[in-house]
Amino acid sequence: MKTTVTLWPQHDADAFATRHNGPRPAEVAAMLRTLGVDSLEALIEETVPAAILDRRDSGIGEGLTETEALAKLHAMADRNVVMRSMIGQGYHDTILPAVIQRNILENPAWYTAYTPYQPEISQGRLEALLNFQTLVRDLTGLDIANASLLDEATACAEAMALAQRVARSKANAFFVDADTHPQTLSVLRTRAEPLGWELVVGDPATDLDPTAVFGALLSYPGSSGQARDFRDVIATLHDAGAIAALTCDPLALVLLESPGRLGADIAIGSMQRYGVPMGFGGPHAGYMAVRDAYKRYLPGRLVGVSRDSRGNPAYRLALQTREQHIRREKATSNICTAQVLLAVIASMYAVYHGPDGLRAIARRVHRLAAVLADGLHALAVKVETTAFFDTITVDAGDSAPLVLDRARKAGINLRDIGAGRLGIACDETTTADEIKALWRCFCPDDARLAALEGKLTARDRLPEGLVRGKDYLAHPVFHAHRSETDLLRYMRRLSDCDLALDRTMIPLGSCTMKLNATAEMIPITWPGFGRIHPFAPADQTQGYAALFAYLERALCAVSGYDAVSLQPNSGAQGEYAGLLAIRAYHRARGDLERDICLIPASAHGTNPASAQMVGMRVVVVGCDAAGNVDLADLDTKLAQHAGRVAAIMITYPSTHGVFEEGVVELCEKVHAAGGQVYLDGANMNAQVGLSRPGLYGADVSHFNLHKTFCIPHGGGGPGMGPIGVKAHLAPYLPGRPEAGAEHAVSAAPFGSASILPISAAYIMMMGDAGLRRATEIAILNANYIAHRLEEHYPVLYRGSRGRTAHECIVDLRPLKDRVGVTVDDIAKRLIDHGFHAPTVSFPVAGTFMIEPTESESQMELDRFCDAMIAIRQEIAAIERADIALDASPLRHAPHTVADLAGEWDRAYDRATGCFPGGPTAAKYWSPVNRLDNAWGDRNLVCSCPDISEYAEAAE
Amino acid sequence: MKTTVTLWPQHDADAFATRHNGPRPAEVAAMLRTLGVDSLEALIEETVPAAILDRRDSGIGEGLTETEALAKLHAMADRNVVMRSMIGQGYHDTILPAVIQRNILENPAWYTAYTPYQPEISQGRLEALLNFQTLVRDLTGLDIANASLLDEATACAEAMALAQRVARSKANAFFVDADTHPQTLSVLRTRAEPLGWELVVGDPATDLDPTAVFGALLSYPGSSGQARDFRDVIATLHDAGAIAALTCDPLALVLLESPGRLGADIAIGSMQRYGVPMGFGGPHAGYMAVRDAYKRYLPGRLVGVSRDSRGNPAYRLALQTREQHIRREKATSNICTAQVLLAVIASMYAVYHGPDGLRAIARRVHRLAAVLADGLHALAVKVETTAFFDTITVDAGDSAPLVLDRARKAGINLRDIGAGRLGIACDETTTADEIKALWRCFCPDDARLAALEGKLTARDRLPEGLVRGKDYLAHPVFHAHRSETDLLRYMRRLSDCDLALDRTMIPLGSCTMKLNATAEMIPITWPGFGRIHPFAPADQTQGYAALFAYLERALCAVSGYDAVSLQPNSGAQGEYAGLLAIRAYHRARGDLERDICLIPASAHGTNPASAQMVGMRVVVVGCDAAGNVDLADLDTKLAQHAGRVAAIMITYPSTHGVFEEGVVELCEKVHAAGGQVYLDGANMNAQVGLSRPGLYGADVSHFNLHKTFCIPHGGGGPGMGPIGVKAHLAPYLPGRPEAGAEHAVSAAPFGSASILPISAAYIMMMGDAGLRRATEIAILNANYIAHRLEEHYPVLYRGSRGRTAHECIVDLRPLKDRVGVTVDDIAKRLIDHGFHAPTVSFPVAGTFMIEPTESESQMELDRFCDAMIAIRQEIAAIERADIALDASPLRHAPHTVADLAGEWDRAYDRATGCFPGGPTAAKYWSPVNRLDNAWGDRNLVCSCPDISEYAEAAE
Repeated sequence: MKTTVTLWPQHDADAFATRHNGPRPAEVAAMLRTLGVDSLEALIEETVPAAILDRRDSGIGEGLTETEALAKLHAMADRNVVMRSMIGQGYHDTILPAVIQRNILENPAWYTAYTPYQPEISQGRLEALLNFQTLVRDLTGLDIANASLLDEATACAEAMALAQRVARSKANAFFVDADTHPQTLSVLRTRAEPLGWELVVGDPATDLDPTAVFGALLSYPGSSGQARDFRDVIATLHDAGAIAALTCDPLALVLLESPGRLGADIAIGSMQRYGVPMGFGGPHAGYMAVRDAYKRYLPGRLVGVSRDSRGNPAYRLALQTREQHIRREKATSNICTAQVLLAVIASMYAVYHGPDGLRAIARRVHRLAAVLADGLHALAVKVETTAFFDTITVDAGDSAPLVLDRARKAGINLRDIGAGRLGIACDETTTADEIKALWRCFCPDDARLAALEGKLTARDRLPEGLVRGKDYLAHPVFHAHRSETDLLRYMRRLSDCDLALDRTMIPLGSCTMKLNATAEMIPITWPGFGRIHPFAPADQTQGYAALFAYLERALCAVSGYDAVSLQPNSGAQGEYAGLLAIRAYHRARGDLERDICLIPASAHGTNPASAQMVGMRVVVVGCDAAGNVDLADLDTKLAQHAGRVAAIMITYPSTHGVFEEGVVELCEKVHAAGGQVYLDGANMNAQVGLSRPGLYGADVSHFNLHKTFCIPHGGGGPGMGPIGVKAHLAPYLPGRPEAGAEHAVSAAPFGSASILPISAAYIMMMGDAGLRRATEIAILNANYIAHRLEEHYPVLYRGSRGRTAHECIVDLRPLKDRVGVTVDDIAKRLIDHGFHAPTVSFPVAGTFMIEPTESESQMELDRFCDAMIAIRQEIAAIERADIALDASPLRHAPHTVADLAGEWDRAYDRATGCFPGGPTAAKYWSPVNRLDNAWGDRNLVCSCPDISEYAEAAE
Repeated sequence: MKTTVTLWPQHDADAFATRHNGPRPAEVAAMLRTLGVDSLEALIEETVPAAILDRRDSGIGEGLTETEALAKLHAMADRNVVMRSMIGQGYHDTILPAVIQRNILENPAWYTAYTPYQPEISQGRLEALLNFQTLVRDLTGLDIANASLLDEATACAEAMALAQRVARSKANAFFVDADTHPQTLSVLRTRAEPLGWELVVGDPATDLDPTAVFGALLSYPGSSGQARDFRDVIATLHDAGAIAALTCDPLALVLLESPGRLGADIAIGSMQRYGVPMGFGGPHAGYMAVRDAYKRYLPGRLVGVSRDSRGNPAYRLALQTREQHIRREKATSNICTAQVLLAVIASMYAVYHGPDGLRAIARRVHRLAAVLADGLHALAVKVETTAFFDTITVDAGDSAPLVLDRARKAGINLRDIGAGRLGIACDETTTADEIKALWRCFCPDDARLAALEGKLTARDRLPEGLVRGKDYLAHPVFHAHRSETDLLRYMRRLSDCDLALDRTMIPLGSCTMKLNATAEMIPITWPGFGRIHPFAPADQTQGYAALFAYLERALCAVSGYDAVSLQPNSGAQGEYAGLLAIRAYHRARGDLERDICLIPASAHGTNPASAQMVGMRVVVVGCDAAGNVDLADLDTKLAQHAGRVAAIMITYPSTHGVFEEGVVELCEKVHAAGGQVYLDGANMNAQVGLSRPGLYGADVSHFNLHKTFCIPHGGGGPGMGPIGVKAHLAPYLPGRPEAGAEHAVSAAPFGSASILPISAAYIMMMGDAGLRRATEIAILNANYIAHRLEEHYPVLYRGSRGRTAHECIVDLRPLKDRVGVTVDDIAKRLIDHGFHAPTVSFPVAGTFMIEPTESESQMELDRFCDAMIAIRQEIAAIERADIALDASPLRHAPHTVADLAGEWDRAYDRATGCFPGGPTAAKYWSPVNRLDNAWGDRNLVCSCPDISEYAEAAE
């Protein structure tokens, strides 16, 4: 407590930091004593190489209080103008039911959860994702859907890549419907060019030569709103061995014949309008569904139904091998995530409305659009769109600027297509008054308007022959939760199945599962951030502009870079964008030969995949026994590929959790060879406030805002992956996709803009000192765990003075060798103790990588270490042959209520099995026993199974 | 689904009602078939007496969608002006930590919970309340604190009543410090007068004759801000056998010597500034602490520590007999509730800040006030307050209007005391800039202001000799949750202990635990409703005025009354206010003899208590065998007390859950005898849209907005208890307390104003048809349960055509008689099935009263009936002597994880005991075994026990 008496009471600049950081001062002191160092500063000196240690402030200033930061962000939100955006172009206003907003989007049980790699403690969100997949499967009429993609534009790019991989046709071109959203075209251009694929853009009816392409992307309905019947086009594509991909509006699909029935092979799109706020472009759940034949090529994540060790049905990520081991050198995709929280919201929106409710919404939207069109027609406005769902294009000719202006004065944004053409999209929030206001924008003549309604018919304008029956959402889950009470209880029941940060630490190496503070989350559901269309006029988005400016400045200052792009909406996409910049830089200098990307053996799988996607060849650089990049091997490779090296991709601190001493030298060597240094920012949580990649030699990095900068994982979301670059790369940052930029990497100009207030709030509230302190505590906590565990498990990889960075790797292989205990046995046994397992077998197979983060108190660290040590003692019992591995609680973990309630014939007692941490009612119970992954992959079921199947399995 | 094609798509006026009501149309049809009626309308005709059935609309119109209602309420909130209110007078701006707001105030696990009468499923909120009691005990330095009262003013009235009851002195007067908040004086006047106690208001130092009073209320600090040393005054009171009650600001108590150390017997006050928004006056938690000697006289609820059947410590409401059987005819209080949710918030605020954090806040507030005073002094402003914590009074003389005006222009409200005197209160949100702005209000002279700071000292202005040490909050709970992560997990852990509406139905007779829809809850945390001081100028509160007008109009229309007062902040207080109006009406007519209140034998305990509090004598009217008021006995009593009958208090439908046919006749008889009819509105959920008390004969009713109108119970809150009256009683509704009205019943002019948007949203969204439909479904659901259970348990009391109203009573006494099974056995066994028990032993001992409400689906009703029937089968096994009662699962219920994990020597198997509804991981586990209430009352512990005590107990 501060008792210093000054005239004005001092603002406590550490107020938030002390809430963000877990250990109390006494705990910090105790941990330092345990480690045998005098101070945090001394520990850091033993950890961070002197050559890069840089404790200077970043000019962020003193930490703000929560109140101050929220006021600052509120002022930004107030500078955004919430209009009725009828721009369409892939983004629509929607109504997020309050019960879903409060109990999912604003509920830490959902938003702080991690990717469901540990299926036993993830059954709730896995069920929600399975609902999502069922929803997408049913809407698209295809066989199998994944658990979501990043956005519509990148989903289209994924579809293109999938088509290229699976098509019989060996053509090298991809056809794109000219009536496709411009941002999609931008991303497709970006993605196709480095892979050497030609894009042909045109009218499918007239410009498509099926024999010249490996596939085609058709828009259904088109960006203009026009809905066309693609059956014939698809048939000719198939005849030529090419793939037909349809990008579809999922609300239109409620009324329009499904792409599956039209013959499509792939359907993609965005589920945004299923309850997810526009948020200036994201995050939303993109989706993809494919025919059964292509299921093993589906990018991203896929939830499937398998069974547990009791034979009960249980969910888990299916075909995980696709993801964990991204195709590296053969990759045409580097996606390794899903927009889980947004997919969950979209699925709950469908669960709440059910098929009838969705139909009512879609019918209402269509009726309004049809009335709008009829009225405009009657007012002698030229409506181009003849058959449509919700969007029309009109040719306003010379009066277009006047109409746009009148509409804005009426509070409505229209789409300015250019050349006098305007787009108008209706949505769930559209009212009759708005339609009338729009008529007035075109014809402000009271008399004509008064007479107008009498002249209108109420005919539908859906395309003939494409009207759909009720062939979707028959599963009971879409019928059983129609009252708010029922939905609330369903959501609660699901969330109770899962372990998230609101109940326990999640000590995931390199995933930095730290506090997602409530104050950081508050702004994201403000309408001033949520109800903004990504292509709204700039004068309506000044608040966002201020937010971006703040964040770009802060990220530059923290990292030592000169410029930042906020467009990449995942870390992997940041890698891709960064490598694109490097590629463009070399090409701009005429350095066309540089196509080698050096990658250390320990790299994350996304690194080589990203390199491959920008047309680089991957050359692996070895690591030494200490896990460091082998500088001698680097010299060899640089020499071997002299003049060809475009870049090196390193992670720092390394994926082994070590501050490599040689990083400055490494950067110098690569630069000397004419290459650029890409530094993967996954481990920035060990650097903020202590070292700056941009100053010690790196040229570009991505920042995982969902790791270091507190955007929650949302059950497996990508957060955001902006990149920072040195000035020489700044000209090559991604451009605005809607303007047709050649270099766009995602659909929205600023990626997942609406969650950026989270990181901004974090930076504001921590201030320079708080950010630095957080990094120091993160390093302290990791070293404390390493210290406590090292007597019991070998700790691999340390820095030159024996310290780990912000994570540590414990080696479980000797135990496997000795008694057969697997990493899985230990991971699942941790569930019995109420913990989420650390990262399993990455970067080293047979190990745990543990990252406690700064947000965990010593008490929680000790609880974790105690559990790990107790497990070691159970292994010792196997070593002593007191118990056989197969009979041991390790092998039976996780234990469930079903174990406890049934007959007990185990070699250990119930309490030992179920309550290794002592009996407590607060114990977390895994809802299922251990998953059988292989069974699930052999018997792939990726949509909601019939209730009867559960019953059978239970019998 | 509607497919009618009209020009404009129709607005679905039932959109919200279908979310609010539980059963789907098919379920409604199935239940009607089960009951053998053709339609809901037919069922209602069999249920509601024709004489009162009145299906007319109330002019509320069609139901709004959630979006529309929120927009309407947002427009109201926008009409309130959020200023910096430095008015003080018992209400202060405060910072509710975001993590508490989101995870308690906005979390249905907390806000939908019911009063913790079933302690086993309430351990979470009971622990939070025990923390609250510990906080109050420590701050006040007294021995025992209760679980909160309604507000500061009523707490002072309760203190007066307690003093009168326990004082050795037999004097008939109560002294009140003149430096007390005017609203407190108003309420004391109201409460004292009917009981015949004289109030003496004056300066304790000069005007108090200790021998002439049974007690005194002293304000610490005073309303003016002045903090005085009352040690001598208290000593003289004690010498005279009188009681000393101190009303204290709990933030001041962090720095000022505790009332306990000063010698006080009672301390009362408001915990509002511990994180609870001002909300235009409420709800907030009032508090009371007393010396040990008076603990059995503590009004309201008291949480205590007892033990469960395993001997483990467990929380429960202590000394419940005080509450369940309010002293009826001897009552000087009718309080039977606590502001649980607000007390929980205040306790978490203290848990989060801990003693050091609270001290830092209090020191900061004091420093700012001290600097303010010094500055004003230096500017030659006359500061009257010499020793203070946070509030000063200045004499601005003729310039007061100018200063007030300048302050408002600077966005600051000051207190206008009158006669040129102004009050200024600093609070947690006050900034140095605001202090500087205030100086400028008094002296807008740049040169003088620039020179000012240099002249100031930094001396404290706390009263000498009253500075406190750190003698509070030593318990570990106030030290263990200092990071947001830790607090978040603590709150989650507690909430997981409890069963609330987000997990199961709570079928409580007459408590109407129905959906508290999220959309209804959204507005209450908007600053436009939350950050408004109750005594802010009227031009800043036009939004609230519009809200009140809407709600008053709607409540009048629904009930048939002519006027409504929103001031009573609980149902019991509504009763009191209604009876006061009746009393005043008679007196105004010169009818001074009317002092008899007729009350049926079946009445709730608050009815006679309320009558007693307004000085009426209670005469009981008998009930017939069918549970109806015995009209013959009524005639007798009316004749017997001719000319003396002031009122009758009835509940309708009756507490037995029956629409009594004779209600119109009853009203006529009482009116003919010159009496007034008070109709307890607890059961309005059976009447809305179907009958109107004000039109069939009642003169006044209170409306429990937390029952019928969806304000959540918040773990045991009073919601709101506004009253409606016929025109002739309108002049006698409570007045504005801060204006010194003689007739104020609570501290704030509009009671718990900030939760009124909940009821307003409900009414708007339901519309006339939705409200009526809800009532019909509530009646359907109750009759369905009665029908399903009647084969298994006798159902008591029915209407003339065999129907119950919205609740039903099942008789468990025959089972008790036959085999000894108690209502408790069955109630606790329901916990094993995952249910909260119905109302136990009210209105008839040995029965359950079950009210399902309209929000439960048939599926949930069936789940409940199945559980009741399964229990009946377990009882049958006892009847057959297959198992002894003591050996049966009924007696061992609720079963816990500790049962399951330990040795099992029961006469039934684990699955039978623990999973009567089948094994499922989603099962709710009671955290404790059955409570031993008697042990707890014998060994009363009402604050957090040492951790060591838990450890000992566990051994």
